[in-house]
Amino acid sequence: MNQSLTVSIDAMGGDAGPAIVVDALLRVVQRHPGVRYLLHGDEAQLKPLLEKRAALSSLVEIRHSPERVKMEEKPSIALRRGRNTSMWHAIECVAKKEAEVVVSAGNTGALMAMAMYQLGLIEGIERPAIAALWPTKASQSVVLDVGANIVASADQLVDFAIMGAAFARAIFHSETPSVGLLNVGSEDVKGNDAVRAAAQVLRNATTLNYVGFVEGSDIPEGKVEVIVTDGFTGNIALKTAEGTAKLIIEYLRAALTSSFFGKLGAFIASGALNSLKRKLDPRASNGGIFLGLNGVVVKSHGGTDALGFSSALDMAIGMANSGVIPRIAADRAGITPQPAATAVS
Amino acid sequence: MNQSLTVSIDAMGGDAGPAIVVDALLRVVQRHPGVRYLLHGDEAQLKPLLEKRAALSSLVEIRHSPERVKMEEKPSIALRRGRNTSMWHAIECVAKKEAEVVVSAGNTGALMAMAMYQLGLIEGIERPAIAALWPTKASQSVVLDVGANIVASADQLVDFAIMGAAFARAIFHSETPSVGLLNVGSEDVKGNDAVRAAAQVLRNATTLNYVGFVEGSDIPEGKVEVIVTDGFTGNIALKTAEGTAKLIIEYLRAALTSSFFGKLGAFIASGALNSLKRKLDPRASNGGIFLGLNGVVVKSHGGTDALGFSSALDMAIGMANSGVIPRIAADRAGITPQPAATAVS
Repeated sequence: MNQSLTVSIDAMGGDAGPAIVVDALLRVVQRHPGVRYLLHGDEAQLKPLLEKRAALSSLVEIRHSPERVKMEEKPSIALRRGRNTSMWHAIECVAKKEAEVVVSAGNTGALMAMAMYQLGLIEGIERPAIAALWPTKASQSVVLDVGANIVASADQLVDFAIMGAAFARAIFHSETPSVGLLNVGSEDVKGNDAVRAAAQVLRNATTLNYVGFVEGSDIPEGKVEVIVTDGFTGNIALKTAEGTAKLIIEYLRAALTSSFFGKLGAFIASGALNSLKRKLDPRASNGGIFLGLNGVVVKSHGGTDALGFSSALDMAIGMANSGVIPRIAADRAGITPQPAATAVS
Repeated sequence: MNQSLTVSIDAMGGDAGPAIVVDALLRVVQRHPGVRYLLHGDEAQLKPLLEKRAALSSLVEIRHSPERVKMEEKPSIALRRGRNTSMWHAIECVAKKEAEVVVSAGNTGALMAMAMYQLGLIEGIERPAIAALWPTKASQSVVLDVGANIVASADQLVDFAIMGAAFARAIFHSETPSVGLLNVGSEDVKGNDAVRAAAQVLRNATTLNYVGFVEGSDIPEGKVEVIVTDGFTGNIALKTAEGTAKLIIEYLRAALTSSFFGKLGAFIASGALNSLKRKLDPRASNGGIFLGLNGVVVKSHGGTDALGFSSALDMAIGMANSGVIPRIAADRAGITPQPAATAVS
């Protein structure tokens, strides 16, 4: 397994710098024997970090990059001036087939711009999307787009449905994952023009298991495996859910530390409460994936630590040989866009 | 206080029927001495319910309505054929100045259509919005629109900011509540055309305390007191947050009942856990308010119980004499729409 897999890593991307990337590698190498890693970044920083970790020496190769993309840099500027950055070089290895997948915790807009430029779009796909894994009652769902596109036409929403289903198939190993369009109600008349036109196309798409409109509360409920929306709504829904989870955990902590019996009960139940804490830990599902490109690109949260970056690496390795790209291309070719919907987009 | 206040109630609106409305009245009459209630609905059902509650007899007057608006009825149909319904009659009392405020747990679309028709819009306001109270780290914030408008132009978003600030002033008693526009990032370049054009107008509005763009995670964080967005995004964010809270409470229950020590700890900490449960109870902040109309209309959740309906009544009574309508009119007149933004809308 994975004998021939190479992961290309932008080691300079995140807020915390390359140390957490190297610590993350220490966590993952044992889980994925045979995988090789190309570490792009400042050799003067990376070399001493690796020298201290003998377990990594035979699996990790440093590729020197003299520059890095800053977090606040405009994507267009990064694309024009960033050819000597660790991010550019990390993507380049996938474009040149030296690696199967690239992982970065850097500037999302710059990563998307550079990846589109170097890898190109899958034939038939208009725009890429960012997909996130969302914890649900049953297990997890895929939500996309969570931020690549501020608006989405009906045709683009159909693309997202195809891409999300292919992704869900690869990671959940479910042959026909259920797909829903995010809306303000389940009745046919609800929603904006793009959502209603996309629904019409998806209802006739025999290659997809489209179940209809879903509402915000259906995401955590796990009603469908793939939730499709535009990047504006998806990004706001994702951040609202993350903030809500954080708030409730703070409420819980405050409630359990406000009285003697609260503290005693929490101490006795600490095993159960710690398992809940691990379940809700956002680092466990860290990593958005860019879908629609001719290459697998995984984006880790910029502010993450070694545990979070290791989750992103796990996801990247799981995706690398899953065949998601040819599947998207085949499904896109099999669905005829509605004439009306095409005219709108 | 409240000596001259009359509340008009659609007793047939919610899923559970008039019994929960009468039980809700029993909860609120003592909190609000001097308030009178007009109860619209089927006299044959309402009379026996009231006869059993002597405390209500002098405060509540039954007004017979032979029909009711069904939950699944189309708003346009309800508006055309619903002149004998409890919902229509309840709103009519506000239009005729017999009551200061109307409360219904019925069909949201029908309530909005009938209220717009009978009460009309405040001068200068293009479209009404539905505002919700959102529990935050500090206390509560106002979020609008949560479902009246699927799309919103820049000018309409400015209207929502004015209306939300007037509402926040009335209920939080804060003279200059902070206002934020919901977006996918805080930088000026982020977001769609409507959001960016609205930001330009709001930055120059001296009567409002506009602080800039906010993200989804800033809502539960309580970063601003008023969050402005279109009804599509607002509805999805609200339902996603409600679903997330429900999921975490289920996780917590499962964690605490899965082992002996979990159960024992939960038993000892039950006081603290119950106070958390009350804090997270969605019934405590039940009630959306329709803003922008020449009259105060409060919408209770359709599936609520007596406790939830009593929260909606509390909100209605608090709003009735708050002067929110003249304040919206004055603030709207004081803000000049941007020529470019007006052209877009």
